[in-house]
Amino acid sequence: LFSNEEIMKMSVLQEINPNVRNMKPLEYSILAGRLSQIKEELRQGVKKPYQEVLDVYMGDPHKGGVKPLSFVRQVLAACLYPQLVNSSKLPADVRQRAQRLLGRCDGGSVGSYTATRGIPETLIRVSEFITRRDGGVPSNPENIFLSPGSQWSLSILHVLLNPESSPRNGVLSPVPCHNTTTMSVTGLGAVVVPYYLSEEQGWELQVEELHRAMESAKGVCNPIALYIVNPGNPDGHVQSRKSMQEVIRFVSERKLFLLADEVYQDYVFGENSEFVSYKRVLSEMGPPLSDTVELASFHSASKGWMGECGLRTGYMELVNLDPAVMKHIFTMFSTDTCAPVLGQIALDLMLNPPQPGEPSYPLYHMETQNIKNTLAGNGKRAVEVVNSLPGLCCQPLEGGAFAFPKVYLPPSFIQKAKEAGLEPDTFYCSRLLDEAGLLVGPGTEYGQKEGTYHIRFCILTSAEIMEEVLTRLTCFHKQFMKDFS
Amino acid sequence: LFSNEEIMKMSVLQEINPNVRNMKPLEYSILAGRLSQIKEELRQGVKKPYQEVLDVYMGDPHKGGVKPLSFVRQVLAACLYPQLVNSSKLPADVRQRAQRLLGRCDGGSVGSYTATRGIPETLIRVSEFITRRDGGVPSNPENIFLSPGSQWSLSILHVLLNPESSPRNGVLSPVPCHNTTTMSVTGLGAVVVPYYLSEEQGWELQVEELHRAMESAKGVCNPIALYIVNPGNPDGHVQSRKSMQEVIRFVSERKLFLLADEVYQDYVFGENSEFVSYKRVLSEMGPPLSDTVELASFHSASKGWMGECGLRTGYMELVNLDPAVMKHIFTMFSTDTCAPVLGQIALDLMLNPPQPGEPSYPLYHMETQNIKNTLAGNGKRAVEVVNSLPGLCCQPLEGGAFAFPKVYLPPSFIQKAKEAGLEPDTFYCSRLLDEAGLLVGPGTEYGQKEGTYHIRFCILTSAEIMEEVLTRLTCFHKQFMKDFS
Ligand SMILES: Cc1ncc(COP(=O)(O)O)c(C=O)c1O
Ligand SMILES: Cc1ncc(COP(=O)(O)O)c(C=O)c1O
Repeated sequence: LFSNEEIMKMSVLQEINPNVRNMKPLEYSILAGRLSQIKEELRQGVKKPYQEVLDVYMGDPHKGGVKPLSFVRQVLAACLYPQLVNSSKLPADVRQRAQRLLGRCDGGSVGSYTATRGIPETLIRVSEFITRRDGGVPSNPENIFLSPGSQWSLSILHVLLNPESSPRNGVLSPVPCHNTTTMSVTGLGAVVVPYYLSEEQGWELQVEELHRAMESAKGVCNPIALYIVNPGNPDGHVQSRKSMQEVIRFVSERKLFLLADEVYQDYVFGENSEFVSYKRVLSEMGPPLSDTVELASFHSASKGWMGECGLRTGYMELVNLDPAVMKHIFTMFSTDTCAPVLGQIALDLMLNPPQPGEPSYPLYHMETQNIKNTLAGNGKRAVEVVNSLPGLCCQPLEGGAFAFPKVYLPPSFIQKAKEAGLEPDTFYCSRLLDEAGLLVGPGTEYGQKEGTYHIRFCILTSAEIMEEVLTRLTCFHKQFMKDFS
Repeated sequence: LFSNEEIMKMSVLQEINPNVRNMKPLEYSILAGRLSQIKEELRQGVKKPYQEVLDVYMGDPHKGGVKPLSFVRQVLAACLYPQLVNSSKLPADVRQRAQRLLGRCDGGSVGSYTATRGIPETLIRVSEFITRRDGGVPSNPENIFLSPGSQWSLSILHVLLNPESSPRNGVLSPVPCHNTTTMSVTGLGAVVVPYYLSEEQGWELQVEELHRAMESAKGVCNPIALYIVNPGNPDGHVQSRKSMQEVIRFVSERKLFLLADEVYQDYVFGENSEFVSYKRVLSEMGPPLSDTVELASFHSASKGWMGECGLRTGYMELVNLDPAVMKHIFTMFSTDTCAPVLGQIALDLMLNPPQPGEPSYPLYHMETQNIKNTLAGNGKRAVEVVNSLPGLCCQPLEGGAFAFPKVYLPPSFIQKAKEAGLEPDTFYCSRLLDEAGLLVGPGTEYGQKEGTYHIRFCILTSAEIMEEVLTRLTCFHKQFMKDFS
């Protein structure tokens, strides 16, 4: 019929979606390749100055030595294999919880699909949590969507972004920013409009900068949404109420949909810092704002004290959306059936932990207090150590799971990076990985002011691993400064 | 600043993505509303001719009374809560499996993120399974992507479909078809080009019909992919090798990407039916076809004998894709981090079940044989009973998890449906639900030839539930025929 060559030429996929083509691959893929090589070399007995790699690239507490919460794991195991539970010595409240949760699953099995937005009773539990958290501001279960990871919830953008609009739609996004969000925006054919957080002011969001970003979009795109991460990833800043009020007035004036990524809401340890949700601040500002500003807020079972990233479940709460639009959002989400059921259950447990007086409370309390204290301790320690090193400088950390210090890279090193075909900070990370067996993320991955360089590492680890991370960073960086100055 | 009204008028979301707007909501949402009302009424003690609703709308075995596989649940529970296992009486192979699988998780926890495409060793296990299944045709782990549900794998379409192309891209899709696929295609801005399966020939796919469909697209859209479900959902047909060869030649000539939804590959019970994968047939056809036809094949942990729909994990294998395109696909999938880890593990177990001689084998074998026999028995029984009823007619079932009989609806009933504002078969299903407490799907949901009507129900249930489903359907339908003729 056709020759081999003719058929090759016809390949459909020479013309892929240009928006997907525009997505910048993660810098992580460069480093991950090197990581597996090193792991393989270590397995084969190649001598290195370290016995294993420490990987603190992602915000992944269990990988970093934080132990899962016993209560959570017991209930989940009991839901999966009820027989096992009957024959064992699990606390009474674990059994009761498991029984109650299983009763909400069709056929009494976590192996059944659930309703699209999630198990109805779990949606009620989530909305009750939100109301409690926000000092009584009502939350309607109908506005809550569970999803396979809070990142996935961002597909709400697929509803908001019109691929045919001209000029293109835009989304205001912070610099630095959680990396995959900006990728998703690009993939959906919208323009990322950067607004810069002020490093010198501890990564504060300044409303004048939002105005500047908005101006910069003129003639380029039509911004329709503002994305905010609070507490910040990677920056570790926690917004003040006043700053949030300014943001709310800004989005209202500019007719922007507010996407509030609040997955780190539990991780606040700055002395004068406090997490307040955008929904609460919006409600406190009263009408007309509280009735009109359109808001999506995200949270995730990957975070909180249990840090169950592998279960892949998050929730999104939508506020002030037109009921007609809600119908379309529901229809869109219904193609994916539902979020993982064990993740839905874990989310329920995260938002409704054991209470004083219940058998599991003492252990649960101890375990979570431990993690809480460790996180705060790690944050303090990381800033201290990093700031004691020449050419490294970290703003005070108030919350979140990361440190994001600025790193000074000498011109001779930048030249070497260019020769290696890598971004300068990616090159720094790649050397750190090779020489010290420590994997951290380069600032390029998250965005940074032109001419500045950063690294990001997770601080939600065990205290021992944090110490080891800082030791390796210290050794490497001191040698690095010697070599390049 | 602004009046309430002014702000209302500015709402961003009056202009949502027109592709999302074009997605037709599931008929299910109409029936689900009624379903929860009825459940509530039953709870409040309202007298009805039934004590509880039987819901066989979805292909959800556990909901339909099929028991989870002990081996699968034991290993998963052991992975979640290793302590529990040590203190209990789980079979040795379960413990070993759990240990081995946990060893592949970062930090030894199913709560850690995995690599984007999945746990590397699990990808190898999947490719080994594929090679075994296909009689030695090689499979490369690099071409495998695990995802939160095989439905989600269809976001591969996001790479293939160019939202800016003019004319629009099209996807040839069967009628009837797995419902959410056509929704996804629409949501991505492409045109669904229907090709009709031939009901009279047991829902055979006829290649002339593909040519007709292709002609019908002229001037409307530019078809770039062909979607096939084999074994069929909802139709229960299993394709012959000959038919598959014809399809492969067709996609090659027409430069179409082949999307083979093979999630029901285990469910084949027709006497002369056999599942053969598209990849295998393609390979057997030799070059140039075997080197050039671009193929994506889907499978899912929701199916197989374990039927773990709630864990939400499937895999996609890509064949013959350009490496440059693969990179973009990887980048796109990397925004969602990874598939649920327990689902990844379940998929591993599904494709690598206990072997003869291992402690768990006898129970595993008994449980799966049981489900296998029940499915075949249910299929036979459903066709028998349905075909004994006037005005109902079901083609022989060869595979899959559903029966999709044609139902004759009298004109007077169609008139009533119009008055109720419902599709005639949705109205039929709604009456069946109300009067007999039985929830099945209307043909409208899946597509059907104009002027014909169908219902779909799951046959992967326990034998008792199947009997009860058929009894309720029989009673209702007999009365229905009396009332309307
Ligand atoms: C700001 C932010 N949002 C969302 C996510 C994704 O969380 P999930 O695991 O729920 O997808 C992360 C993960 O690190 C994050 O940092
Ligand atoms: C043909 C077909 N493909 C895909 C799926 C989705 O399976 P999953 O649960 O993996 O999303 C189904 C579910 O019923 C199906 O029938």
